[in-house]
Order: sequence, then structure tokens, then C-alpha cells
Amino acid sequence: MKKKEEKKKEEKNAVMENLISLCKRRGFIFQGSEIYGGLAGTWDYGPLGTGLKDNIKNLWLKRFVTDRNDIFKVDAAILMNQNVWKASGHVSGFTDPMADGSKFNTMFSTSIGAGREAMISYLRPETAQGMFVNFKNIIDSFHPTLPFGMAQIGKAFRNEISPRDFIFRTREFEQMEIEYFVDPRNEKKITETFDALYSEQMQFLADLGLEKSRIHKIEVSESYRAHYSKRSVDTEFDFPFGQKELLGIAYRTDYDLKAHMDASGVDLSYFDEETKQRFIPHCIEPTFGVDRLVLAVLSQAYGEDSLGGEKRVYLKLSPSVAPVKIAVFPLQKNKEVLVSKAQEIYEILRKQFVAVEYDDTGSIGKRYRRQDEIGTPYCVTIDFDTVEKDHSVTVRDRDTGNQERIEIKNLVSFLSQKLDA
Amino acid sequence: MKKKEEKKKEEKNAVMENLISLCKRRGFIFQGSEIYGGLAGTWDYGPLGTGLKDNIKNLWLKRFVTDRNDIFKVDAAILMNQNVWKASGHVSGFTDPMADGSKFNTMFSTSIGAGREAMISYLRPETAQGMFVNFKNIIDSFHPTLPFGMAQIGKAFRNEISPRDFIFRTREFEQMEIEYFVDPRNEKKITETFDALYSEQMQFLADLGLEKSRIHKIEVSESYRAHYSKRSVDTEFDFPFGQKELLGIAYRTDYDLKAHMDASGVDLSYFDEETKQRFIPHCIEPTFGVDRLVLAVLSQAYGEDSLGGEKRVYLKLSPSVAPVKIAVFPLQKNKEVLVSKAQEIYEILRKQFVAVEYDDTGSIGKRYRRQDEIGTPYCVTIDFDTVEKDHSVTVRDRDTGNQERIEIKNLVSFLSQKLDA
Repeated sequence: MKKKEEKKKEEKNAVMENLISLCKRRGFIFQGSEIYGGLAGTWDYGPLGTGLKDNIKNLWLKRFVTDRNDIFKVDAAILMNQNVWKASGHVSGFTDPMADGSKFNTMFSTSIGAGREAMISYLRPETAQGMFVNFKNIIDSFHPTLPFGMAQIGKAFRNEISPRDFIFRTREFEQMEIEYFVDPRNEKKITETFDALYSEQMQFLADLGLEKSRIHKIEVSESYRAHYSKRSVDTEFDFPFGQKELLGIAYRTDYDLKAHMDASGVDLSYFDEETKQRFIPHCIEPTFGVDRLVLAVLSQAYGEDSLGGEKRVYLKLSPSVAPVKIAVFPLQKNKEVLVSKAQEIYEILRKQFVAVEYDDTGSIGKRYRRQDEIGTPYCVTIDFDTVEKDHSVTVRDRDTGNQERIEIKNLVSFLSQKLDA
Repeated sequence: MKKKEEKKKEEKNAVMENLISLCKRRGFIFQGSEIYGGLAGTWDYGPLGTGLKDNIKNLWLKRFVTDRNDIFKVDAAILMNQNVWKASGHVSGFTDPMADGSKFNTMFSTSIGAGREAMISYLRPETAQGMFVNFKNIIDSFHPTLPFGMAQIGKAFRNEISPRDFIFRTREFEQMEIEYFVDPRNEKKITETFDALYSEQMQFLADLGLEKSRIHKIEVSESYRAHYSKRSVDTEFDFPFGQKELLGIAYRTDYDLKAHMDASGVDLSYFDEETKQRFIPHCIEPTFGVDRLVLAVLSQAYGEDSLGGEKRVYLKLSPSVAPVKIAVFPLQKNKEVLVSKAQEIYEILRKQFVAVEYDDTGSIGKRYRRQDEIGTPYCVTIDFDTVEKDHSVTVRDRDTGNQERIEIKNLVSFLSQKLDA
């Protein structure tokens, strides 16, 4: 029995090793400062990793900002006045228990200014406070009525004692957070809003192509919640190294606005025009770790199988996040008639789908393998029949290996449909 | 004579004051950590500032990354191994003269890890080094042939002694940089590439709507150039506080790759398959400050005039960067027939143009003024004639105040044309 467990663990470690190796080999993610032996807990995104990450961020922005009318995007500075972190409790404490029982680590500190005017500050350990301190600015500039939210994507930093599991636990990471403000007088509505935002989180994970069976809802019990949180739901995901936190949502009441109001002396209340009442809004916070989402997507997508009798490594990425959507191949690189037609089709597809690659190196089989490895959903091959006979191309599906002959004049609409499905 | 100069200076100061005030009032840019008295040299972007900034970044990405085949986008960590900064010369020196004669300031330092394993590192003072240290990764993953480039958008930090001029000289800022690698054996080609990239920089400024007459080309003389730079061209802009550096391009030879090769011991040479020669590529670096571009765009756009006998403040933003492209108004907010038609048109326009606002508060005149102030190019008003008579709406032009009656069925194509022009 023990042997079986060990074997399973080894297999899972092997998946991570293979994935990390693929990420480096194919230009997704590199160790930070690698040529200098690295800097533990930092990672650099290469062209394909950046493409994947940008796709994830854009899907998030679409769902939580541009498709809605009630959420204001902001971009606050990473360096903030140290009093922000005193008010938030990060300076004195920063030891709130996490869902997995671990503790937050200390913040990175730095000194700002020079001489007698120098003051200590910190690299923000979360993007959330950048929104709370701008609450009044949003009220004053936009006069929104409750409920409304603020959203931010940005870097955050924690001096983790032992960074580990690739891009899962790092010292520098990217967050996408929302602070959604609600009327504290209507508890039923608050519960509904919490559930609706949780449901949006799940739909967002579906946008990324993450499988329901790998996603686990954890109602955080009171003893594990921060003292100010009235409800927290963590979403855990089956990573190769175990079921771990992917994202969360917390009902933080009026804790943050009150703390900043007390510490700054600035009025952060809201005036309800309808009832002529003034109060501090409550806050629901859906929070997402970009790097963890990248890792969830990559680790679910990673696979090895045989196709047509040959072993292959592939990424079964959803077309919504794949950094390259389509690859275009001339059957041979030394036949001008094939190359010019392939270039022509490449330009048409690039104009439409942007993330399109052109490859003319090696056999078609090798090119398929290369595209499979970076998760390209469709490959388009231009052959002699294309130019001499049927004005059609071969479209090959990454997951099944199936090949279809498609007329050039229908190619854009065919691929649009496939990529949207 | 002196009085005249003083008056001119006062007027220019007034423009900056009015612009900063507008930016805060309308939700473009707020002082960082404002409710705590601020943190000098940090600024937070509000919803409209974020929209404007994102538009600028996207135009840059389109021109320099997605519309080309030869530039690889990366996203390197802000925290890097300290040896990066020793090799680059930032740790020992960091005193290269800037184009304006000022000196670089020291870097922000921090401590990474804990106990005996703790080591010093720095908040990167430029994004460039994050690309040089990944040069080998790009070569190994993508096997590009010269010339090719790397591009990055990201935060950088400098502990400026006296941050000033709004978002012009700050302690935290965003850069867009390109490292473009060329064959050192062909000097003529290098000169051509330098000029072509400079020309792309100018076309990018035109994309943003910046006026040629405000843009000045400065060939940096040898005595002002960094010792490794063989040629530098700074682009200065007429800001309200004077003609100041907006962006630059430098021919850095093989200085950076050589320095990292020497310091890291890792081979950063390039093998030319054609001639079977191995050498260190040379590098041309076009560099852009996002915040300075935002300021250039805003300060050029800021204006005060009279329209229809009324004074107004407006932003004459190019539609390419305006954070709101179109505003939709029902003539009256309490007439269901107007509101439902206005909502219907709003949804159609939002689907097409995304950055569309709905406003039903106050008189139409007041709504025009509000949109003028945030630089919205077009306002669409739905009135009784729209629903009862002619199925047309009034489209009003921000700059001229002219109003045109447009049939609803032609509205999307009419506005597309106007916004693209």
C-alpha cells in the first residue's frame, strides 16, 4: 500500500517536472534571473506564457469589468504610505491564518526618500488596500449608487520563507481583485450578492476551460476565518501536487473602510440619497491569483499520449486561453507556389485571429508535434492540391488528430466557429 | 520684459494646476495614498486614467509586437538577483548622466529571504535588464534569426530625491521598452534599423494624436551619452512646464550582453547559421515612459474655450486614446419611451465600441460639458423625434459642437468611421 502511494507521488512529481521543463523549453515560463543562478520565488514569463497570462487577464476583465456597468477599474501604486499597512493590520500582525493553516509571511520593506525625510514603506502584499484608500475618490468622481465595485490587476509581494511548487507559491505574484460594496442594511441582498459573485467566479473558471471535477468549494469555518470575515469561500483546485487554494471570496463587512476611516480621519461613509441615511458600506471581496490560474490551466492541459502510433506531449488548452490559436504550414518550404499561398493565408488569419504562427521547418509531423506541445488548437496546411486543384487547405485538430479539407473561402468562418465553441 | 515672462510661467503653472485638478475631479489620476497625506512620487490611476493608459499600451503593443513578426513579448519579475544590477553597473555607479544633465538616483533596496539566507535586492530601476537576462532563453526556445527584438511593459522604481511635475518625475513608473538585436558586422544595416525604429517611435506618437510641432528630436552629443552608447536620440515634448524628455532610443552596442556574459559566465553569443560565425549581437533600445506619454496626451488635450456663448473645459483627446468613445443620453430621464430606446442604442454601441457611457443626469447642456471634460469625442442624444418620427438620433461632435441627425440604422458605421479617422 505504501509503495502504491509513493509511486503515485512520484508520478505527480514527474508531471510537475515535465511541465516545468516544457515551460522553459518552449518559452512559457523561465526561472527569474536564471543566468545568475536564479532568485528563489521569482519567475519570468516568456512570449507564450505572457500570451497565456494576457488571455486569462482579458477574460477576467471582460467578465468582471467591461461586460458590467457597476465595477470601476483602478491601478494604484505598489508603494504606499506605511500608514496604510498599519491601518490594515499588516504591519502589526500579518499573521492571519490562511485557509491551508499556513501563516502570511512578513512584507518586503524599503526606504523611501533620503536623509532625515526618509521613511519606511513596503511592497504591497495585496492589491486590495489600493482600492480601499481610493474609495472616496471613486465616490467623489463618479457618484455611484450601491452596490458597486472596484477592480484591479497588479503585482503583489510576500517574503515567503519557502517558495515552492513552481509558480504556485512565489515571492512576487500578480493578483486580480474586486472590492464590491453593498448596503449593510439588507442582509438577504448581501447573501444573494455573495452567491452571485461566487457563481461568476465559477463561470470565469469555465471560461478558462477548467474542469468542474477538479474544482472544490470550501466553506471556510469560523475558526479559520479572519476575525473580520463573516463568510469566506475558498476555491481549491486539483494541482499535480495536491488540492490547493486557487481563489477565494470573502465577506469583509465594513472592516477595511472603518479601519482606514479611523486611522486617516477621512470620512469614508456613503450617503444614500433615497433614504437620506449615511453609513459605511460593507464589502465582498472576490480575489484571484493570476499565476495560480496559469498553473491550473497548464497543469490540467498537460498530457502525454500516442497519436497515429507516435508518442507525443501536448497541452490541451482551451482555445480561449491558448497563446497561439492557429499555425499555418506550407507543405514544403522550398516551393515558391506553396510558400506564397501559405503566406497569403497566414496574413488573412493573422488579421482575423492575431495569435497565428507560421512554421516551415521540418516535416509536417514534426510541426504538428511542436504545435501540440504549446497547445495550438488548429494547424492549417497548404499543399499542391490547394494551389493546383481544389482551393482548399487541410485543417488538423490538436486533440483528435483529425484532418478536414476546408475551402479557403470558408476558412475564417470555419475557424471562428471552432475557436468559439 | 521680465513681467511678461513671469506671467507666461504663471499661466503654464495654472494649466498644470487645472489639469491635475481635472484629473482628480473626474477620476483620471489621484495622489497615491491620498487619505494618508500621500506618498511623494506615487500616483494612483482611476477608471478614466486606467482607460487612457490601457489605450496607449495597446497601441504600443499593436505597433511594436502584434503587427510584427520579429519582436517577442516577455514579462520578467521586478525583483531580480542582485548580481544583475552589479553586472549592469547600477549598483556601483547608477550615476550615468541623463539627457537633461541630472543624475540617476539610487535604487530602492530590500531584503529577500530570512536569517542567514537573506540577501539584498532592488526594485528594478528599468525593465531593460529583465530582457537581457532572458536573451538566451529566447534564443533557446524560439531560435530566431537576427534581427529580432524583445519587448516588455512593466513597473520600475527610482528613489527620486525630488519627485515633481505631476506624473512626469515619479518614484514608481511604468516603462515600455524594446531591446532590438542586430548583426554587429553590418554597420550600414544598423544605422538603417536605428532610423527605422526611430521612425516607428514617431509614428506611434502620431497614433496617440500628439502634434508634430510639440515634438523635438535631440541627437545626444557624445559628452552626454553613456560611455557604451554609440548613438542616442532623445525625443522631447513641449509640456506645460517646459520642453522635457518624453522617450528615447539608444544604440547600446554589445555592452549589456557582454557585461552579463562576463558576470554570469553564461554564453550569450549568437550563432549565425549562414556564415557559421559566432558573435555577440548589438542592441538598439527604444524606450518609452507610459506615465510621461499619458501626461503628454493630457496636457496637449487640455483646453478652455467658449462654445455657444458658454465657457467650457475640455480634453481634445484623439479617439484612439479617449477612455470613453461615445456617450448616450435620453433627452429626459423620466420618459420611459426615451429611456428604453436610449438603453437599446447604448447596448448596441457598447457591444461595438466597449467604452461607451450612459448618462441621464441634468440638462443635455450639462451632460455635454461633463463629456467634454473627460474628452469623449461623440455624444448621442435620443429625443422624441427619434421614437415618434424619424428613427434618427443627434450626434454631437466634441471639438466643433456641431450636431448631426443620423439614422439609427447607420449609426454604428457612422461612428466607426468618425472614430477611425
